[in-house]
Amino acid sequence: MWADLRPIGRDATSGGYRRYAWTGADADCRTWFQAQAESRGLTYETDRNGNQWAWQGDPLAGDAVVIGSHLDSVPDGGAFDGPLGVVSSFAALDELRHRGVEFTRPLAITNFGDEEGARFGLACVGSRLAAGQLTPEKAYELRDGDGISLPQAMEAAGYDPSTIGADPERLARIGAFVELHVEQGRALDLTGDAVGLASAIWPHGRWRYDFHGEANHAGTTRLVDRRDPMLTYAETVLAARREAELAGAVATFGKISVEPNGVNAIPSLVRGWLDSRAADQSTLDQVIAGIEAAAQEAASRSGIDLKVVRESFTPVVEFEHALRDEMARVLGDGIPVLGTGAGHDAGILSARIPTAMLFVRNPTGVSHSPAEYAAEDDCVAGVRALADVTEGLACA
Amino acid sequence: MWADLRPIGRDATSGGYRRYAWTGADADCRTWFQAQAESRGLTYETDRNGNQWAWQGDPLAGDAVVIGSHLDSVPDGGAFDGPLGVVSSFAALDELRHRGVEFTRPLAITNFGDEEGARFGLACVGSRLAAGQLTPEKAYELRDGDGISLPQAMEAAGYDPSTIGADPERLARIGAFVELHVEQGRALDLTGDAVGLASAIWPHGRWRYDFHGEANHAGTTRLVDRRDPMLTYAETVLAARREAELAGAVATFGKISVEPNGVNAIPSLVRGWLDSRAADQSTLDQVIAGIEAAAQEAASRSGIDLKVVRESFTPVVEFEHALRDEMARVLGDGIPVLGTGAGHDAGILSARIPTAMLFVRNPTGVSHSPAEYAAEDDCVAGVRALADVTEGLACA
Repeated sequence: MWADLRPIGRDATSGGYRRYAWTGADADCRTWFQAQAESRGLTYETDRNGNQWAWQGDPLAGDAVVIGSHLDSVPDGGAFDGPLGVVSSFAALDELRHRGVEFTRPLAITNFGDEEGARFGLACVGSRLAAGQLTPEKAYELRDGDGISLPQAMEAAGYDPSTIGADPERLARIGAFVELHVEQGRALDLTGDAVGLASAIWPHGRWRYDFHGEANHAGTTRLVDRRDPMLTYAETVLAARREAELAGAVATFGKISVEPNGVNAIPSLVRGWLDSRAADQSTLDQVIAGIEAAAQEAASRSGIDLKVVRESFTPVVEFEHALRDEMARVLGDGIPVLGTGAGHDAGILSARIPTAMLFVRNPTGVSHSPAEYAAEDDCVAGVRALADVTEGLACA
Repeated sequence: MWADLRPIGRDATSGGYRRYAWTGADADCRTWFQAQAESRGLTYETDRNGNQWAWQGDPLAGDAVVIGSHLDSVPDGGAFDGPLGVVSSFAALDELRHRGVEFTRPLAITNFGDEEGARFGLACVGSRLAAGQLTPEKAYELRDGDGISLPQAMEAAGYDPSTIGADPERLARIGAFVELHVEQGRALDLTGDAVGLASAIWPHGRWRYDFHGEANHAGTTRLVDRRDPMLTYAETVLAARREAELAGAVATFGKISVEPNGVNAIPSLVRGWLDSRAADQSTLDQVIAGIEAAAQEAASRSGIDLKVVRESFTPVVEFEHALRDEMARVLGDGIPVLGTGAGHDAGILSARIPTAMLFVRNPTGVSHSPAEYAAEDDCVAGVRALADVTEGLACA
C-alpha cells in the first residue's frame, strides 16, 4: 500500500508532502483510497462533506465500528501524520480476515477531508462540517492564499459544494470511531512503548495578529519617524514564548505575511498567526491574555495599530471513558495513556459519538516535517493493536 | 504627461505601484517614454543594458548633458519616486524650448532600468551594468521569486540579454548627469525649501540572514525540544533597531520568507533581509558587526544555524564638487545641500562620470508607499531648477 501512496504530492526538493485539500495531490490520494476499498470488496462512498468511506457490512444497519484518519498534509509534512492511520486501518482489516474472525457489526474505514487546514486555514473541515461544528455559511467564506473559495475548490475537484453541512443521520449509525495516529511528541519514546492510548486533546486555537504600521523608505526615514510593525511583531513573538514557558503551555508564531515585503521598505502590515495550546482551558486563557496584553503594550508604544482575531478554537476533548477502558482491557492494562496537544478528527467527532485514539511511537517526536518517522516494528505493533481493538468491538 | 503614466502598474486595492523590471507594467512605462521622446522629435534608443535614451543633438558628439531617473517601483510604491525625475526632465526640455535658448551640447533624457531591484533583489541593475559594477555573469544568476532568471525575463520582454555589460564608450560621451528625485526624508520640509542639492549618498547594503532550525509540530513539541528560528529572528530584529539607534544609523528588516509557513508548524527556515545605512563607512561597519554578533549569540543559545550573506553593498558616494558648485551658482547660494540614505543611479554612475542630484520637497518624508507625495508648486519649482541647471550646462 505504501509504495503507491509514497510519491503522491511529494516535493522533490524538500522531500516533504504537499497534499492540500482539493488539489491534484489530494485527488490522487482519494483515488488511492477508492482503489484500496474496491480491491477488498468494500462498498465505497463519498459523503456530502467530501469524506471517504469504505464499508464492510450494511452501512445502514447502525452501531458501526469506524477506523481511519486523513490523507492530506501540512506544507512539507511527513509521510506518517494521517496516512499511517488509513494504511493501518486497511492492514488491520486484512489481519482480521486472515484471523478468520466473524464480524457482528458493520465496519467502515474512513479518510476525512482537509484535516490539516493547510489550504483554507481551518483544521478538520470534513469532520467539523459533519459534526455541525462548522456551518455551510462559514465554510463558504473560507478562502485559500490565492483567493479561491472552498466551494470553488470543491467544484474544481468535481465535488458538489451545495450539499455540505451537518450529517447527523450518518453519525447516528456509528457506534465507535477509533483513529490511529503517529505520536507527535516523545511520550512513548520516553516510556519505551510502541503503542499508547489517548486520554484527552488539549484545548487549542489559532489567532491572527495584524500589526498595521506605515510603509516608508528603509534608507531615508529617521528611526523616530517610523511606525515599523516588524518591531512590534518581534516583541510579540518573544512575549509568546515567555508566556508559554511560564504556564507550561505551548505558543508558536509559525506563519507570517508581510506587506509590501520589500528589502528597502518599512512594512505597512505584518500579519502573524499564533497557535497556542495548554492542558486546560484556564491555563490557555491566561497564556493568550498575557500575549495579547504584551503585544498591545508594545503596539501602543510604537504607534502600531494591532487587531487580534481568533480564527479557530477547540475546547478540551476528553475521550470517552467506557470505550477507552474497553480498549485498555483488550490491549492490556499496562498500555500508557497520554494527552496530546494536536487536534484530530477524532477530537471533533467526540462531541457526537464515542471516539478513541491509538498512538504509535515517534522516536524523535518530530512531526509536520519530512523528518517525521516511525519504525517499521512499531507500525506493525500499531496495526496489531488496531486489529485487536477492532476484533474486540466488531467481532463475535 | 502624468495622466498617461498614472494608471500604469497601479494596484486597485492598495493604490500603490507595482512596476517591476521586465513585466507588463514596465513595458507600458517604456512605451510611454518612447512616445514622449518621439512627440518631441528626440532620437530614441535603448542601450545594451535596457536603459532608455531620448537625444536632442548628436548622441556621438560627446560631452553630453544627461537628465533623467527611473520609472520602475518598489512593491506598492508611490507615484513620484523615479517618475518625477523623468517627467520633470521632459518638462524642463519643454521649458527650455519655450525660453528659446540655443543648445551648445547634446542633451539626453534617460530612464534607467530596474532601479529599485524589486524583482531580482539587486538595486540599480541598469546603471550598475553600464558602469561595470555588475558583471554579465553575476547578472545572469539573478532570479526573481518565481525562479525566473534576469535573461529569461529580458527575453520574455523582447530584449536581447546576450549584449548586457559594461558600456564605457557610451559613458565616455557624457559630460554630466543630473538626476532629479523626490526627497525621501523630511530635511527640505524642516528647512522650508522646495528644492535642494545632494551632497552625498550614505554607504548602504543588504544582508540576508538565514536562520535554520527544525520543522516540527507546533502543538505537541515541548518548548525545550524546539529549535525555532522565528525566536532568533525576532531577537535579531530588535537587536538591529538597538544597534542603529546607538550609532545614529538606520537598520531595517522589511522582507521575510518562512518555510514551511504553516500555522501549526514550527519553521525549519526563517530568512530575513537586513537593509542598513549610515553617514560613513566605519559607523555602518560597526552597526553591521553589532547586529551579526547579537544574532549569532542568540542563534547559538537556541540551537539555530545562522548564515549571513551580503547581497549588495554600495560605498559612500560624494557627488562631484565642481558640478555641484556650478549648480549652486545657477540656483543661488542659499540652496540647501543635503545627504541621503537612499541609493540612486546617479550614485552608481558617479564612479564613472560627473553626476549631481536635485531633490524636491516631500512634506511627510513618506516614500516607498502609496502615501508618497510632493506638492504641485514644489514639482514646478523642481522643473524650473532642472531647466535652469540644464540651461547653465548645455546652452550658450
